[in-house]
Amino acid sequence: MTMPFQVTILGSSSAMPTSEKYPTAQVLNVLGRFFLIDCGEGTQHQLRKNRINYSKINHICISHLHGDHFFGLIGFISTLILQGRKNELHIYAHSELQRYTKFQLEFLQMNDPGFPIIFHPLNFKKAQVIFEDKKLKVTAFPMNHRIQCCGFRFDEQAREANIIKEKIKEYEIPIREIKHIKAGADFICESGQIIPNSELVIPAQTPRSYAFCSDTAYYEKMIPALEGLDLLYHEATFADEDLKIAQETYHSTGTQAAKIASLSGAGKLLIGHFSTRYKTPDAIFSQAKAVFPNTEIAQENSTYQI
Amino acid sequence: MTMPFQVTILGSSSAMPTSEKYPTAQVLNVLGRFFLIDCGEGTQHQLRKNRINYSKINHICISHLHGDHFFGLIGFISTLILQGRKNELHIYAHSELQRYTKFQLEFLQMNDPGFPIIFHPLNFKKAQVIFEDKKLKVTAFPMNHRIQCCGFRFDEQAREANIIKEKIKEYEIPIREIKHIKAGADFICESGQIIPNSELVIPAQTPRSYAFCSDTAYYEKMIPALEGLDLLYHEATFADEDLKIAQETYHSTGTQAAKIASLSGAGKLLIGHFSTRYKTPDAIFSQAKAVFPNTEIAQENSTYQI
Repeated sequence: MTMPFQVTILGSSSAMPTSEKYPTAQVLNVLGRFFLIDCGEGTQHQLRKNRINYSKINHICISHLHGDHFFGLIGFISTLILQGRKNELHIYAHSELQRYTKFQLEFLQMNDPGFPIIFHPLNFKKAQVIFEDKKLKVTAFPMNHRIQCCGFRFDEQAREANIIKEKIKEYEIPIREIKHIKAGADFICESGQIIPNSELVIPAQTPRSYAFCSDTAYYEKMIPALEGLDLLYHEATFADEDLKIAQETYHSTGTQAAKIASLSGAGKLLIGHFSTRYKTPDAIFSQAKAVFPNTEIAQENSTYQI
Repeated sequence: MTMPFQVTILGSSSAMPTSEKYPTAQVLNVLGRFFLIDCGEGTQHQLRKNRINYSKINHICISHLHGDHFFGLIGFISTLILQGRKNELHIYAHSELQRYTKFQLEFLQMNDPGFPIIFHPLNFKKAQVIFEDKKLKVTAFPMNHRIQCCGFRFDEQAREANIIKEKIKEYEIPIREIKHIKAGADFICESGQIIPNSELVIPAQTPRSYAFCSDTAYYEKMIPALEGLDLLYHEATFADEDLKIAQETYHSTGTQAAKIASLSGAGKLLIGHFSTRYKTPDAIFSQAKAVFPNTEIAQENSTYQI
């Protein structure tokens, strides 16, 4: 059975609100762990629309402190309080967000939310593992925006191969040998016959990986943090003709997003965060596709398997 | 020509978010003046959906400081700043909202929004006129909720009658008399003949009125502030069988909303802010209708002429 590793786009608009799109928010479901990435205004609403249970979200990553990436946080936390949540909530963000949230909760007389809210300050100088367990590793890495801003990379941990049960019987493999075989060892029978590992196991699925890059100017320094991704979400606020505005505002063009995908060897590129100056993202999309053919436009309320 | 006096429902849900409804927000268009009443999360989005130009909103009334009634404010103000607004923005709210908003704007490094934001603290002890000009009067009045909370009443000012031009010629009415006639005076010709006012003018349209009551327990003390309304919006969070919860949480039942409409002599009642515990508001609606037949459920993205 393939375990879920999928991202649902809740919002992908740029700072100016539109009637159709929501500001940035995504939910990554990694093997049943739910990570909320950014939390623009309306995230609660979009979570409901996508039937994602609030209580499953134990981790929130906030890329930077521009309002369109975190204005939905206080509403989400307030609702968790109303729901009587008990589980820890971990928030990975600029250290200042803790001060902001504390002020808001005090103002709302919610000083005691009834569950622990644990803030993990991001490092904006170098890539840093912010979460790790047996199944998943999450790395935050600096991007290049007007204010301090991090991207997030999610890596499934390498899993052991699955041993073929019939082979245990066939070769009378003792239990103590199984963990070695799962880890890649061959098996030597009592007769001295060597059974190659490849005959004994079904190899584990290759670990999957996803990264989120919004908002950022074109920034080659983050490529080492992006190497070999299955799926990369990269902002593509502007079309080529507005390259100058992209540079001035520390955003990217579709072409630049595609270059990053190409240079980092991504399997697939999702683009979003389009400026409202364009009626459609068609130009940005075709410019990106010309550089990196496996590009798709991030559609809100769509879920992408990784 | 009838000038617009209409309310658009942007959101009418209670505190718990749903996939379909937005938290409380309404826009009243009174003769081209736009008043935003409450500003729940997602108000910006809903304004866009209803094609209401942000720049036309110069006045925002916030009933109380529960998050579902004002979490959308900072996002809306941020967007106004991004848009380069210059006009004054008037906010009528609990005095503490100024401190909250100031903190947020400082945090966002938007200390200088580029336009004046003028806070008008509400009086929670007695009804008070918070805005008045030639065309409109707005009154805030205390309701009865867990925290200090005001309703808002909007009254079109009485207009002068329109003098019939043909009569000016016919009776050779001098210009100096016209204002008296518009105000209701008869006209005495040089011959001594008295022309009754009713023959000289088309009476002005009766002034229209609207009031917004959310959130509040059943509260007869506010009836004097609600007398003779054309349209009353009153919260109806609970059905009769949950009267006890309504009392404990300082909310109203549909029946209670209808009683207030009936006792204050409203022309029509709109109900909303239904608890998410009910799959549909049918029970609340039929209970309200039994007491006050001219009741309607407030539909989001609908505009009601007053």
